[in-house]
Amino acid sequence: MQRRKFITRAAIGSAAAGTLAAPALAQGQHPEIRWRLASSYPKTLDTIYGAVDLAVKRVAELTDGRFKISLHAAGELVPPLQVLDAVMDGTVEAGHSASYFYIGRDPAFGFGTAMPFGLNTRGQNAWLYEGGGNDLLNEFYAGFGLYHLPIGNTGAQMAGWYRKEIKTVEDLKGLKFRIGGLGGMVLSKLGVVPQQLAAGDLYPSLEKGVIDAAEFVGPYDDEKLGLHKVAKFYYYPGWWEGSATLPLFINQKAWASLPPMYQAAVKAAAAEANQWSTAKYDIGNPAALKRLVSGGAQLRAFPKAVMDASFTAAGQLYTELAEKSPAFKKIHAHWAKFRDEQLLWQQFCEQPFDTYMASTRRRS
Amino acid sequence: MQRRKFITRAAIGSAAAGTLAAPALAQGQHPEIRWRLASSYPKTLDTIYGAVDLAVKRVAELTDGRFKISLHAAGELVPPLQVLDAVMDGTVEAGHSASYFYIGRDPAFGFGTAMPFGLNTRGQNAWLYEGGGNDLLNEFYAGFGLYHLPIGNTGAQMAGWYRKEIKTVEDLKGLKFRIGGLGGMVLSKLGVVPQQLAAGDLYPSLEKGVIDAAEFVGPYDDEKLGLHKVAKFYYYPGWWEGSATLPLFINQKAWASLPPMYQAAVKAAAAEANQWSTAKYDIGNPAALKRLVSGGAQLRAFPKAVMDASFTAAGQLYTELAEKSPAFKKIHAHWAKFRDEQLLWQQFCEQPFDTYMASTRRRS
Repeated sequence: MQRRKFITRAAIGSAAAGTLAAPALAQGQHPEIRWRLASSYPKTLDTIYGAVDLAVKRVAELTDGRFKISLHAAGELVPPLQVLDAVMDGTVEAGHSASYFYIGRDPAFGFGTAMPFGLNTRGQNAWLYEGGGNDLLNEFYAGFGLYHLPIGNTGAQMAGWYRKEIKTVEDLKGLKFRIGGLGGMVLSKLGVVPQQLAAGDLYPSLEKGVIDAAEFVGPYDDEKLGLHKVAKFYYYPGWWEGSATLPLFINQKAWASLPPMYQAAVKAAAAEANQWSTAKYDIGNPAALKRLVSGGAQLRAFPKAVMDASFTAAGQLYTELAEKSPAFKKIHAHWAKFRDEQLLWQQFCEQPFDTYMASTRRRS
Repeated sequence: MQRRKFITRAAIGSAAAGTLAAPALAQGQHPEIRWRLASSYPKTLDTIYGAVDLAVKRVAELTDGRFKISLHAAGELVPPLQVLDAVMDGTVEAGHSASYFYIGRDPAFGFGTAMPFGLNTRGQNAWLYEGGGNDLLNEFYAGFGLYHLPIGNTGAQMAGWYRKEIKTVEDLKGLKFRIGGLGGMVLSKLGVVPQQLAAGDLYPSLEKGVIDAAEFVGPYDDEKLGLHKVAKFYYYPGWWEGSATLPLFINQKAWASLPPMYQAAVKAAAAEANQWSTAKYDIGNPAALKRLVSGGAQLRAFPKAVMDASFTAAGQLYTELAEKSPAFKKIHAHWAKFRDEQLLWQQFCEQPFDTYMASTRRRS
C-alpha cells in the first residue's frame, strides 16, 4: 500500500480540480479515485436506480476497490431535475437522469431517452452502440461539457392509468393527463392538457379527480403507486416511450482525467447495467401485471384512430422542432432514417416470430 | 515491474496446473495470466466471432494488460466441434461455441443457445441474466467441469434458402434440408431429411441439387455465402432460432483460480459483448436484406399450417426428450413456465408498439 499515490478528493468541489492534480503513476499503479454520482431517481425504483447501483459496484470490483463511485438517490445531493447542472458545473462528477427532463434547453435532449413513436429497445441499443447514435449524442452533449453512456432501458412502457375509457380522439380533448416531455407536447396538439406532478402526488390527484389520467413506467413500478385503485383503465402501448434509455452523464473533464483502465471499467459496467435493467423489468413486469389485473385493473389498447392521430401529431411536432433547433434537425434526420431500416428488418424477422409465439399462448 | 510475480503458463498444458501454482499476492498486485480461447467459428462471422474479440480486448483493458486471453478461430487449435472437449480437459482455458452442437451428449445442451419455438432475444437475456436460467445451466454444465457466460446473441434468424416454395406441410416431405440440432429433429417428424454440411459446401450442394434447402443465420452472414444465387426463396421466421445465444465456456478450475477482479472483468466484458453482438446484427441485417432482395432473393413467410405442424412436432419432441434426460426435464420445466410469462407480457407491451410502428412504415 505504501507504494501507491493516493488521490483524495475534497468532499465538495469541482471534478476537474482533483483529477488534474493526479500525478503520473508508473505502469501498473492505479490511483485511488472517488467520484460522486447523483441520480434523479429514488431507491424505490429498484430497476432504474438498481442498474446504476450494480454498475458502481462493478466498477469497484473491476478496479480492486481503487475507483469508488458513491451513488446518491434523488435529492440527496441535488434536486432530481438539477442533476444535469450539477454534472456540468462539476458539483458531482457524474449524474443519472432522463435526458428528456432537459428538453427546455434544447429539444435534442429527447433522443437520449425516448421519442414518441421512436425506437424499441433493440433498435435504441443498436442505434446507440453500433449505429452512430451515441457518437451523435456525445457531439451534442459536448456543448454542455458532458460525456454520455447508456446505463439502463425500461423496454416499452405502458400508457398509464385512466379514470375513463379513451374510445375516440374526441375523448382526449380536455383530458388532464399527467405526462411530461415530448409525449405531452404531441398530446396537447390533440387537446390533452398535460400536467406535471411528482410521483407521490399521483394517487391523491387521481382519487380526487384533480387529474383524469397519469402515466408512469410499467406494471412493476406502477404497482407500487397503487394507481389501479383510483383509475382502473390501464392503457397500452405507451407510444411516447417504446423504450426509454437512462443516461449516465459524466463531466467531460472528469472523464478525460480517468486512466484508460478506469474508463474501460465505466464503459463495460454501464453496458452490462443497460442490458441487465431490461432483463430485470422483463422479469418483474409480467408478475406485476397479473397482480394488477387481479386487483381490478382493466387492460385497454388505444383505438387505431387515437394511435393514428397521435402519430400524425408527432410528425408535425418533429417538423416544428427541427425548424427551431439545428441539433434536433441533425440528430432527427439520422434517427428517422435508422428507424425506417429497423422497421424494415423487424417485419421480416422478429415480428413474424413474436407474433406466431403470441398465438401459441392464446391457443394453449 | 520488479515487484510483481509473473505467472507464466506453458504454451500447451492443463488449465488447472498453471493456475493452482499461482502464489498469493498482496492486495493491489495483479498476476499476469495468459489464457487461450478456442472458437468454433471463423473470423468471417465477424459478429459472432467479433463479439468475443471485443470481449478479450476489453478484458485486457480492464486489467491493464495483465490478463491476456488469446482468441483462436475455428480449427486453429482444435476442430470446431471439439471446443467443448478442449475446455473440459483443460487443453484450453476457455471456448466459444454453440451449446446445441453438443446435444448428442445430452439434449439439455439445447437451452444454452436456442430451442425451437423458444425465447426471443429479450426473453433469452431475461431468462439467463435475471430469471435464474444461467444458474440452472451452470448447475448442468458443472457436471462437465464447465462454467458458462453468454457472449453473443444473433437475434431471430431467418429460416434459410429454398429451391422450391413451401406451400403446404406436404412440401416438407423428403426435403433435403441442411439444418442441425433440435430444429432438424423437429422437422424430421414432418418428413424432412436433415443434412449436415459445412458452410463452405452449401453453395455447390444447392447449385447441384444435392440438397433442396439450407439455413445459416440471417441476411448479414448469409449474403457472404451467396446462396440467393442458387436458391431464391428466402423464408422466415427461423422458428428454431428465435434468438441464439453464443456461449463462453470456461474450465471450472481455471475460473476458480482467477482473482475476483479478473472474474469481474470476464463477466462484464462478456455481458457487454452479448449486447453489442445483437446491435451489430441489427445494423448489418437490414442493409444486407435489401441487397439480397435486389439480387433476386424472394422473401416468403412459412404458411400458418406449416408453423402449426412444426409447433406441434416440437412439443412432441420436448416430451420425448424430457423422458430421456433428467437435466432436460428439469430445465425445460423452468424454461417453459418462463416462456409463458414472457408471452403474456409481450402481448400487452412490446408487441402492440412494434406492430403499430410496422404499420407506419407501410403507410409512409
